[in-house]
Amino acid sequence: MLDLSGLPNSLQKLVRELTRLPAIGGKSALRLAYHLVCNDRAAIDGLVAALNQAKTSVLLCERCCFLSEERICKICQDSTRDDSILCIVEKPIDLLAIERSRDYKGRYHVLHGLWAPLRGKGPEQMKILELQSRLSEGKIKEAILALDSTVEGDATSLYLARLLNEKGVSTSRLAQGLPKGGELEFADDTTISHAFLGRRPITP
Amino acid sequence: MLDLSGLPNSLQKLVRELTRLPAIGGKSALRLAYHLVCNDRAAIDGLVAALNQAKTSVLLCERCCFLSEERICKICQDSTRDDSILCIVEKPIDLLAIERSRDYKGRYHVLHGLWAPLRGKGPEQMKILELQSRLSEGKIKEAILALDSTVEGDATSLYLARLLNEKGVSTSRLAQGLPKGGELEFADDTTISHAFLGRRPITP
Repeated sequence: MLDLSGLPNSLQKLVRELTRLPAIGGKSALRLAYHLVCNDRAAIDGLVAALNQAKTSVLLCERCCFLSEERICKICQDSTRDDSILCIVEKPIDLLAIERSRDYKGRYHVLHGLWAPLRGKGPEQMKILELQSRLSEGKIKEAILALDSTVEGDATSLYLARLLNEKGVSTSRLAQGLPKGGELEFADDTTISHAFLGRRPITP
Repeated sequence: MLDLSGLPNSLQKLVRELTRLPAIGGKSALRLAYHLVCNDRAAIDGLVAALNQAKTSVLLCERCCFLSEERICKICQDSTRDDSILCIVEKPIDLLAIERSRDYKGRYHVLHGLWAPLRGKGPEQMKILELQSRLSEGKIKEAILALDSTVEGDATSLYLARLLNEKGVSTSRLAQGLPKGGELEFADDTTISHAFLGRRPITP
């Protein structure tokens, strides 16, 4: 950890808060703090306002658990989308990546986590209850599991495939195009399109 | 630029504010915003408080222009340090890097910029008036220019060497150890120690 003892206390505190963020180390945090305090103090007001507004305004959609400022998000409100197909993703960023590829016109469900026993994350920490409630409505005939191509993504896919098969939903998983060990949010649009076309049935 | 149109407005705004920060691109900003809103909403309060406190508390020291919460910083207040030697740096981060190497016990002056005509930065945008006011007190006999080993650092060193020589201050510049084209804030402690020991006189 970077030695900050020479800095004013309030700046040390700002650096510590910034290092709590993912992928921001000590030196990056120090440069950010210095930039804000010395070069762009006006940006602090903008950032503070945006943080406070996001904190109070952003909810999870009650149906699909995507980010929304209303109880039901825009995608769930869109009546032109196909109710019979459900694409299940881990994170909102993954949903945005799929929307960018423009191939998919069904509904989504955002899990907000993967089954990761080694990190103490079981199925109860994913948005499974919300998924089961949607399945019980009986509209969904097909599910596409669009999860990372990692051990945790594999385990979660198998878990969900069992659950979906029990409900009579035919289930496939994105296949071609996603390199093994890679993460969905970094894939390019064409790779995602290919992965949609080449999806394979999954047998639990 | 990343397409954010699928996101709630307040989250789009937060992502835009985050991308204003140095070295934070669209995807990093999106991950930070998602992390704050979905995984660690409590961190928003801590970050907002730290930003506001740093904005109101952090000043520049009236003598050396380092960061401080008082009119005069701790280093300038320290009566055990040598008043006759002045180390001139660009940024507060550079001062911290030199303090880490523990070799230097003189005073500092922080320029908050380098002479960079191509980026529209002349000497009037550095803390030169404050430097001249300190020189006029007549205590400083030796100056060490500890600036980046870049074209802008070279130009600023030459400019300062002329100014300091006129006042009868012998001037040297950090030499051995800093790789050409490298930036001071990324140097390790030993490299900085060697650079202090191997400093060379400069002739304008």
